[in-house]
Amino acid sequence: MLPRMGRGPSTPQPITSQPVSTALLTDHYELTMLQAALADGTGERASVFELFGRRLPSGRRYGVVAGVQRALDAIEAFRFTDEQVEFLRRDEIVDERTAQWLATYRFSGDVRGYPEGEIYFEHSPLLVVEGTFAEAVVLETVLLSIYNHDTAIASAASRMTWAAGERPCIEMGSRRTHEEAAVAAARAAYVAGFARTSNLEARRRYGVPTGGTSAHSFTLLHDTERDAFVSQVDSLGAGTTLLVDTYDIAEAVRTGVEVAGPGLGAVRIDSGDLADLAHRVRAQLDSLGAHDTKVIVTSDLDEWAIAGLASAPVDGYGVGTRLVTGSGKPTSGLVYKLVARADDDGTMVPVAKRSADKASVGGSKRAHRRLDASGTALAEVVTLDGAPADGRDLVVPLVRGGEVVGREPLDASRERHLRSRGELPIVARQLQPGDPVVPTEHPS
Amino acid sequence: MLPRMGRGPSTPQPITSQPVSTALLTDHYELTMLQAALADGTGERASVFELFGRRLPSGRRYGVVAGVQRALDAIEAFRFTDEQVEFLRRDEIVDERTAQWLATYRFSGDVRGYPEGEIYFEHSPLLVVEGTFAEAVVLETVLLSIYNHDTAIASAASRMTWAAGERPCIEMGSRRTHEEAAVAAARAAYVAGFARTSNLEARRRYGVPTGGTSAHSFTLLHDTERDAFVSQVDSLGAGTTLLVDTYDIAEAVRTGVEVAGPGLGAVRIDSGDLADLAHRVRAQLDSLGAHDTKVIVTSDLDEWAIAGLASAPVDGYGVGTRLVTGSGKPTSGLVYKLVARADDDGTMVPVAKRSADKASVGGSKRAHRRLDASGTALAEVVTLDGAPADGRDLVVPLVRGGEVVGREPLDASRERHLRSRGELPIVARQLQPGDPVVPTEHPS
Repeated sequence: MLPRMGRGPSTPQPITSQPVSTALLTDHYELTMLQAALADGTGERASVFELFGRRLPSGRRYGVVAGVQRALDAIEAFRFTDEQVEFLRRDEIVDERTAQWLATYRFSGDVRGYPEGEIYFEHSPLLVVEGTFAEAVVLETVLLSIYNHDTAIASAASRMTWAAGERPCIEMGSRRTHEEAAVAAARAAYVAGFARTSNLEARRRYGVPTGGTSAHSFTLLHDTERDAFVSQVDSLGAGTTLLVDTYDIAEAVRTGVEVAGPGLGAVRIDSGDLADLAHRVRAQLDSLGAHDTKVIVTSDLDEWAIAGLASAPVDGYGVGTRLVTGSGKPTSGLVYKLVARADDDGTMVPVAKRSADKASVGGSKRAHRRLDASGTALAEVVTLDGAPADGRDLVVPLVRGGEVVGREPLDASRERHLRSRGELPIVARQLQPGDPVVPTEHPS
Repeated sequence: MLPRMGRGPSTPQPITSQPVSTALLTDHYELTMLQAALADGTGERASVFELFGRRLPSGRRYGVVAGVQRALDAIEAFRFTDEQVEFLRRDEIVDERTAQWLATYRFSGDVRGYPEGEIYFEHSPLLVVEGTFAEAVVLETVLLSIYNHDTAIASAASRMTWAAGERPCIEMGSRRTHEEAAVAAARAAYVAGFARTSNLEARRRYGVPTGGTSAHSFTLLHDTERDAFVSQVDSLGAGTTLLVDTYDIAEAVRTGVEVAGPGLGAVRIDSGDLADLAHRVRAQLDSLGAHDTKVIVTSDLDEWAIAGLASAPVDGYGVGTRLVTGSGKPTSGLVYKLVARADDDGTMVPVAKRSADKASVGGSKRAHRRLDASGTALAEVVTLDGAPADGRDLVVPLVRGGEVVGREPLDASRERHLRSRGELPIVARQLQPGDPVVPTEHPS
C-alpha cells in the first residue's frame, strides 16, 4: 500500500449533504410533453421506460455501471419547490394545470436495474422505470446525465485499475473537469477500484478516502527546495510524499532523504520519462538506504501508460485528465426509451421506434449473465419480462412504490465491481480496441 | 430565426440560486500545503498565481474564454461552513491552527483576467490572482475546474456556431454529461453563440433561452402518430416543432401538415442521412404549401456535420453529445501556477519550475492583442507587468480587495465573443487541425 498522503483516520466519515431539488436538471421538452399528455389523458397511461446503451463506446470490451446511488438520490430529490414552479409558471413553460401537477410531484412507481459496480454490455437494461408516463418521463434527463457520466468514468477507471494490478491508482483529476462532475468522478473511480482521490467533497459527501501533500507552488514559495521539504516534513511527518521534480530530481531526492531520513514515505515524479526516472530514483533511494520509500508517478497517465510502467519500480499511479474524461470516451451513449405502455383498456403494449439506425426493442426486460462451469461469463441474456432465468440474475429492485429500496454502502459497490470483473474472460483486460468480450442475446 | 419551441417570454428571468459553499471542491493537497505554509510563516508571503494554458488543445486554432462569471460566484462562495470545518478537523485533514484559519477564510486579494467570451491563445494569462500564498493557493482547484470545463465547451461551441453561419444552433446535450456540468455547458454554449438550450436550470439560473417540444416517447405513447401530433398541436399550437422520424418520415410530414396546417412551425429529423432527408422533406413541405415550416436536424451533429449540411435546406441544428464533450477536446489543459512571490524582505521574486516539458515563465503578466489597420489580429502579446501596451488590452479587473468588480450580464459576454471572433484571420474558421491562428509573443 501507499504511505499515507495527508493525515486522516482510515475510516472517512461521510456527512449527508443538504437535499437540493434536482427537478430542473431537466430538458424543456420533458415538460411540454408532460403538458400535452396531461391534457389528452395519456399522461396517466402505465408506462415502462428502459435505460440502456445500443452499443458500448467504440472499441470497449465491457462497461461498468456507476451512478446508481446518485440516481436514487436524484429521484428522491426530484421535487419542484415553490420557487421552481413559480419560475415555470412565470416563464410560461407550462400551463396552470401542469404547474399544479408538478407542485405535488413525487415519483410513485417502481425502478429496478443493475446494481452499482456491475459490468454491463450492449442492450443491458441498466434501469427499468415503471410508472405513469407523466411521472416516468420527467426523470429522463437527470437519470441519463448521471448514468452517462458516471458509467463513462467508472468504465475508464476499471481499465486503469486492472492495468495497475496490485499497485494503487489515485484519482487527481478534479481540476480537469466541471467542479461537481469532479466529485462524481472521484466516487465512480473508487467504485472501479481506485484507492483514493484528491477531492475533499467526495470524502465529505461519499466517504471516498482522500490524500494529498504538495504541489510545485509549495516548493517555489520557499527560498530553497530544502526549506520547502523541511516545512512539509515538520507539518506532515516523515511519512509524507515529497514532490521531487521542481528543479533537479536527483538533488531533490538526496535533499528529501537528508531532511526526512530513510523513513521518507514517498517521492512523486510528475514530468519527464517516467519509466527511466523511476528506475533512477529507485536506485538512488536504495543507495541512500531509503528502501521503503515509495515512488509515485503522475503526469497524464492513462491505462496504456500504466501498463507501460508495469516493469518499472513504481509503487502508485496518480491519474487525472484521462480519468475524468473517460480515457477518450467521456460519455456512454446511454438512452432512455419508452418500451411499453398501456392501451385505453389497460393492456400493456410493447412499443419501439423504427428510426434509421436507432431502432429499439419494445417490452419490459430482464437480464441474466450466463456463466460456464468455472464461473466465466459466456453471454449477457436479455429477455422479455417473464422468460425463464438463464444465469446469474443481474437486476435488483431499486425503488418500490416510490420508496427507495436499493441503498447500499459505497464499499459494497466497489466489492461487487471486483467480483463481477473477475467473471470476465481474461481477454477483457487487453487494452486494444475490440468487440464486447461477452455477447448480448436479446429479443429483436 | 427558429419558430418558438415551447412557450415562454422572449426575456428569461433568472433567479439567484441559493448560495452554496464551494470550499470543499478542492484538492486535499491545497490544505496540506496551506497547513505547512501557515506553520512556517510563508503562507503570508504576497504571491501571484497565473491561470493559463501552455498550448491550445491539439489542432485548435483558437480558444474561447468561459466560466469567468461562474468563477466569480465560486470565489464569493468560497467560505468554509461550520460543518465543513468540523469535518476537516474530525478527519484530521488539517491541524487546529489551519482549521481556525479556514473558518474565517475570505479571499481578500485581487484578480484580473480575460473577460468572458474573449478569444485566447497559448500562454494567454486568463487569470492573474494576487494575494497571500495561503489565500490564493486554496482557490486553485475550483478555478481550474470551472475554466477547464467551460472554456472547453465554449471553444467547441464557437466552431459550431461559426460553421452554422446564420442558422441557429440549439444546445441539447444535457443528458450526455454530468447533470451540473450540463447547466454550465448550456451557459458556455450560449456565450459562444448558441441560440438556446434544452436545459431548464440554465434558464432559471442564468437566463439562457430554452426550447423543447417532444421526443419519440410522446409519439409511442399514443395509439397513432396522428393522435400524438393532434395532442401536441392542441397543447403547444401550430407553431410547434413535430418530430417526424418515429415511423415513416414522409407519412409523418403529411400527417403533420394535415394536423397543424401549413402554418406548422417546424419538423425535426433525428436520424438517417440528414442532408438527403432535409431535401426530401423540404420538397414535400413546399408541395404541401408549408413554405414557412422550418426543417430542424439533430443526431450526433458536430462542427463538421454542420458544415457538411451548409447546402442542405436546413433551418436549425440541434447539438448534443459533441457539444458537451468539447467535440473531442473535453478539457482545456489550463494550469494555475505560482509565478511570483515575496521574499522575506517583501521584494517580489519571479518563480518558475524547471520540470521537463512543463517549464513555466515567472512574473506577473499583462496581455494585449496587436491588430492590423483593418482590425485583424496579428499577435497575442504577453508581457511582464509594467511593459508598454501593444494593442488592445485584454485584461480587466475582476476582484479588487476581495470584492467582485467584474460582473456583467450574460449577453455582454456573448456579444464580446462575436466581436472578438470577428477580429481573427478568416483561416480561424477552417475546421482542419492547425496551429493557433494568432501567435503568442511571450517572455521566456
